[in-house]
Amino acid sequence: MKLTLLGTGDSGQVPVYNCRCAACERARRDPACRRGPACASIEHRGERWLLDAGLMDLAERFPPGSFKGFLQTHYHADHAQGLLHLRWGRDCRLPVLGPADPQGFADLYKHPGILDFSRTLTPFEPLRLMGLDVTPVPLRHSRPTLGYVFSDGGRHWAYLTDTAGLPGDTFEFLKRLSLELMVLDCSFAPQAHAPRGHNDLTRALEIIDGLAVGKAVLTHIGHEFDAWLTANQQALPAEVLVGADGAVFR
Amino acid sequence: MKLTLLGTGDSGQVPVYNCRCAACERARRDPACRRGPACASIEHRGERWLLDAGLMDLAERFPPGSFKGFLQTHYHADHAQGLLHLRWGRDCRLPVLGPADPQGFADLYKHPGILDFSRTLTPFEPLRLMGLDVTPVPLRHSRPTLGYVFSDGGRHWAYLTDTAGLPGDTFEFLKRLSLELMVLDCSFAPQAHAPRGHNDLTRALEIIDGLAVGKAVLTHIGHEFDAWLTANQQALPAEVLVGADGAVFR
Ligand SMILES: [Mn+2]
Ligand SMILES: [Mn+2]
Ligand SMILES: [Mn+2]
Ligand SMILES: [Mn+2]
Ligand SMILES: [Zn+2]
Ligand SMILES: [Zn+2]
Repeated sequence: MKLTLLGTGDSGQVPVYNCRCAACERARRDPACRRGPACASIEHRGERWLLDAGLMDLAERFPPGSFKGFLQTHYHADHAQGLLHLRWGRDCRLPVLGPADPQGFADLYKHPGILDFSRTLTPFEPLRLMGLDVTPVPLRHSRPTLGYVFSDGGRHWAYLTDTAGLPGDTFEFLKRLSLELMVLDCSFAPQAHAPRGHNDLTRALEIIDGLAVGKAVLTHIGHEFDAWLTANQQALPAEVLVGADGAVFR
Repeated sequence: MKLTLLGTGDSGQVPVYNCRCAACERARRDPACRRGPACASIEHRGERWLLDAGLMDLAERFPPGSFKGFLQTHYHADHAQGLLHLRWGRDCRLPVLGPADPQGFADLYKHPGILDFSRTLTPFEPLRLMGLDVTPVPLRHSRPTLGYVFSDGGRHWAYLTDTAGLPGDTFEFLKRLSLELMVLDCSFAPQAHAPRGHNDLTRALEIIDGLAVGKAVLTHIGHEFDAWLTANQQALPAEVLVGADGAVFR
């Protein structure tokens, strides 16, 4: 299994338009510190699926034949906007597997073009992709949202964004698996109260600790959390990494 | 007055994903032949407004302070998708002036961020921007759509996309002005029957001829029309140009 993080920012990305905070200024100076909208890829046995479609240059990055389709966590703009252009492609068909969400994003259902939204996923019902078991797990967000667990027999990896905490059944399911790798929504620096829709670092560390994950990678990182991290690098336990656009895990 | 075409493609852009037609293959070889989604800029007296927001890299192209706001023709994805990210900017306010459209695009009205959609425009009621009279004129499209006429006293320029033909009152209004420059939707090569939503070349030339325009520039060009044009360059009268991304008119 090979997981590549392609966009580790939140909806505002890093840099945020017109923001002068330390993280946004650094990202303007150093493109390696930029954070694009939500997207990742999972590869196994020479096949690739994309996780979310937040990036707007998917047509350039992933020419036809280079991937099989999308595993969509949910239909917020920062996860689905890359589909707006791609749908008008020719002579191919791209399945978009994801949660049952009657609304979807913008007019994608009305004018799907080459995208095939016909198959919605049932929580905890695994599908077989790339020779892996892929299990959708419910997350806690402002609209129907699924995380994905990839299992190659021995190892289990999870991609979990966007979420604030985890539903009880998802937590129990993940705990039994003993995850080797977990990519987890952590949008905010530690907050006095649990934020809605996304984890802050306090809640993310609670989940990581509770699940006894081998390695955790934070994603969906907001610019303020990014700035906070530069001043608080010691805040993270050894098994917790901050995701970066382009980071690869094998 | 200075008008710059920034995106002259239709919703599929050129190249279309996975398309092997002559226009799409040429655009892959030569970036100058690419056509991005709808966007243009109008400048006068050191100020700039953007016409539509189809481009997805507006934050990089137009840093804060480099433009005053958007004149939106309508809220289809290929004209509004660039607002999805920009809205999360900080410490500034960007007016988006456009037609009254209760739906708008995606969740932009629900979560406008720095965008101000509060002012909708009334057809034929001019506003004063950049020292110009800017007159919104109704177009004929699948949702509420406005073209814009820019007048500096002596000269009159019009930006008219998306439209199939022109409503009678718009046609009469434009005819009285004797347009010096008209940017016009021409998405398709000549068709046996008038297409819906957009002009083909036959209908575009009828409008140009009927209005006795000084110079007409075709935009919103589909890849099939683009391919047709390379084989039919003599099809255009001398006063009709094919728009290109980056083309400037003064
Ligand atoms: Mn979300
Ligand atoms: Mn998100
Ligand atoms: Mn359009
Ligand atoms: Mn349109
Ligand atoms: Zn910032
Ligand atoms: Zn083509």
